[in-house]
Amino acid sequence: MNTTTASALIRAKVDANIFKYIDERLKQAKSVDDDYERLWREIHTLMGAGGKRIRSRIVLLTYQMLGGEDVESIIPIAAAHELLHLGMLIHDDIIDRDYVRYGVKNIAGTYGDIYATTVKNPEHRLHYAQASAILAGDLMLSDAYQLILSANIEPAKIVEVQKIFGNGIFEVIGGELLDTEAVFRGEGAASSEKIALHKTASYTFSLPMLVGACLAGASVAQRMQVTTFAQNLGIAFQLRDDVLGIFGNEDETGKTNTGDIREGKRTYMIEQFYELASDDHKQEFDQFFGKNDISNEQARRVRQLLIASHALEATEQAITRYTQKARATISAMGVEPAYLGELNELIILATERAK
Amino acid sequence: MNTTTASALIRAKVDANIFKYIDERLKQAKSVDDDYERLWREIHTLMGAGGKRIRSRIVLLTYQMLGGEDVESIIPIAAAHELLHLGMLIHDDIIDRDYVRYGVKNIAGTYGDIYATTVKNPEHRLHYAQASAILAGDLMLSDAYQLILSANIEPAKIVEVQKIFGNGIFEVIGGELLDTEAVFRGEGAASSEKIALHKTASYTFSLPMLVGACLAGASVAQRMQVTTFAQNLGIAFQLRDDVLGIFGNEDETGKTNTGDIREGKRTYMIEQFYELASDDHKQEFDQFFGKNDISNEQARRVRQLLIASHALEATEQAITRYTQKARATISAMGVEPAYLGELNELIILATERAK
Repeated sequence: MNTTTASALIRAKVDANIFKYIDERLKQAKSVDDDYERLWREIHTLMGAGGKRIRSRIVLLTYQMLGGEDVESIIPIAAAHELLHLGMLIHDDIIDRDYVRYGVKNIAGTYGDIYATTVKNPEHRLHYAQASAILAGDLMLSDAYQLILSANIEPAKIVEVQKIFGNGIFEVIGGELLDTEAVFRGEGAASSEKIALHKTASYTFSLPMLVGACLAGASVAQRMQVTTFAQNLGIAFQLRDDVLGIFGNEDETGKTNTGDIREGKRTYMIEQFYELASDDHKQEFDQFFGKNDISNEQARRVRQLLIASHALEATEQAITRYTQKARATISAMGVEPAYLGELNELIILATERAK
Repeated sequence: MNTTTASALIRAKVDANIFKYIDERLKQAKSVDDDYERLWREIHTLMGAGGKRIRSRIVLLTYQMLGGEDVESIIPIAAAHELLHLGMLIHDDIIDRDYVRYGVKNIAGTYGDIYATTVKNPEHRLHYAQASAILAGDLMLSDAYQLILSANIEPAKIVEVQKIFGNGIFEVIGGELLDTEAVFRGEGAASSEKIALHKTASYTFSLPMLVGACLAGASVAQRMQVTTFAQNLGIAFQLRDDVLGIFGNEDETGKTNTGDIREGKRTYMIEQFYELASDDHKQEFDQFFGKNDISNEQARRVRQLLIASHALEATEQAITRYTQKARATISAMGVEPAYLGELNELIILATERAK
């Protein structure tokens, strides 16, 4: 069996575990009230609508490549990362005022429709739709912890995993706060690299890799190498995300490619633009960037300016640089040779993806 | 030592544990960024501004009254309930559009001030202030789980406690959803009793009591009695809360007594009003109730109508009824006689409080 087939099989197992869990909650929610069941149905729909399941894959890959042998027993721990991720996305979308995720309406988007008949005032309707999304995100966050508890491993290991999990959440929320404040803080804001480190690298890479390493019984030295690898790959991943946020194909990414422009999100690419662009171009850029009611034509012009200034190119070079740094640590991690191929696939997925 | 002194001592220990934890996070947050530290400072301030610490007290009281003897070791688990509670309040306040809690500005309220210089548009400022509050609530929810992990008990017990904890969170969020939807659902909404059961009884009473019972090694029969006691006392507590939400003294409660009127919150007392009031009074009531820009004079009139219709009286009677039902289960719970006095204090605190 090649690694692609193996990882497809594992993904199917992770998904089966996730949906078994959500379906149990659906039943429990129905016994409370049909309206509570409805919220869980929407969670089910959103979870099924997309997602690369990259975090669960990283947990399992790291576990295996560091010598872990009982994949079955830790599937729920891998799945927990997807619940956490959905919760973070749901809350992130409220903060970013996005209503579409994975090409479908997210919780706030769907509840905007559900409440259309009962809440006539559009402003109030939006508020209540966001309230449902706050609650849905809370459920995912709590149930991520619950899914970890359901793993068939010794309780002492569960406690150890949960501590790593909590530190990952602490990190990602710090990154999320800095990211949000960067939108309006301008010059005084945290650097895009710091944000990428805490918001993405920590939670999408370091967290699942450290959980996998812990479960595999990795040494302290191995865990430190794993962290270095994860941080570099994570920053590359975030830079790719920033590029896709503006240059992505909406049909492929399933999310808007004007949101970051409207919000005026100060990514590394934007920092590069202000380093590299001519004063004329900066002036023109500033007219459109961060403008809430931007036209498609104006968004196109923003993209042209990012290309003309070589800011896009500089970002692509940074992606390559961080990816190379990550690759340089692989031998020191002590990876089982059988998993080098899959690790390479992960690196490519993280840094060269189009969605 | 009498029980009041003992419970004051225990409260001091719970608070010491809570703030030790928050202070550690403060330091970690500072190493991320000063702006992240600021969020934790605001959490610290809000936690210190008030709170009856009723949930932690219930955990410890239940543990002791069912025979538990090592209070020190489970203090962090009691404290975890206060972190969870603060998180739920922070999110609840976003949903209710309240900006004051414990007589001081809550997270969204404080961040409205903090962002005043950088975000000129008041609507955007409010949005970002709420974003900070979403993140602060997420931190409390996750760190409630983390605090449980820090208890000095066997890991298998930690796993058991966390499962109860997760079910409590599942319940309270269901209740919160129904409560929110009841504001605008009108006739089709879930009954106030159902909401009280899931939103308050489950989480303020059943959850901490079941956690305490679990830690004390209570039998299944005892746990069932504990649940019956908790559900009845919890409904009485919620009814008292509803009365205070409209008739409370703002200086004592530390929160607005017009918010529920403005939101048109359909509590048991309001249901009773529609049962008992004359058609003229109902018509007059409907002009004011649920009106966002209500005057103090109109709010006073709402209160007069609730008194004149005997809706307030009927609610007080229901509080008495549920409290008596709770008392009737005490003997079956198998309470250590030394703790009967403190249990009685708890009942009085829950049902006769003025804040």
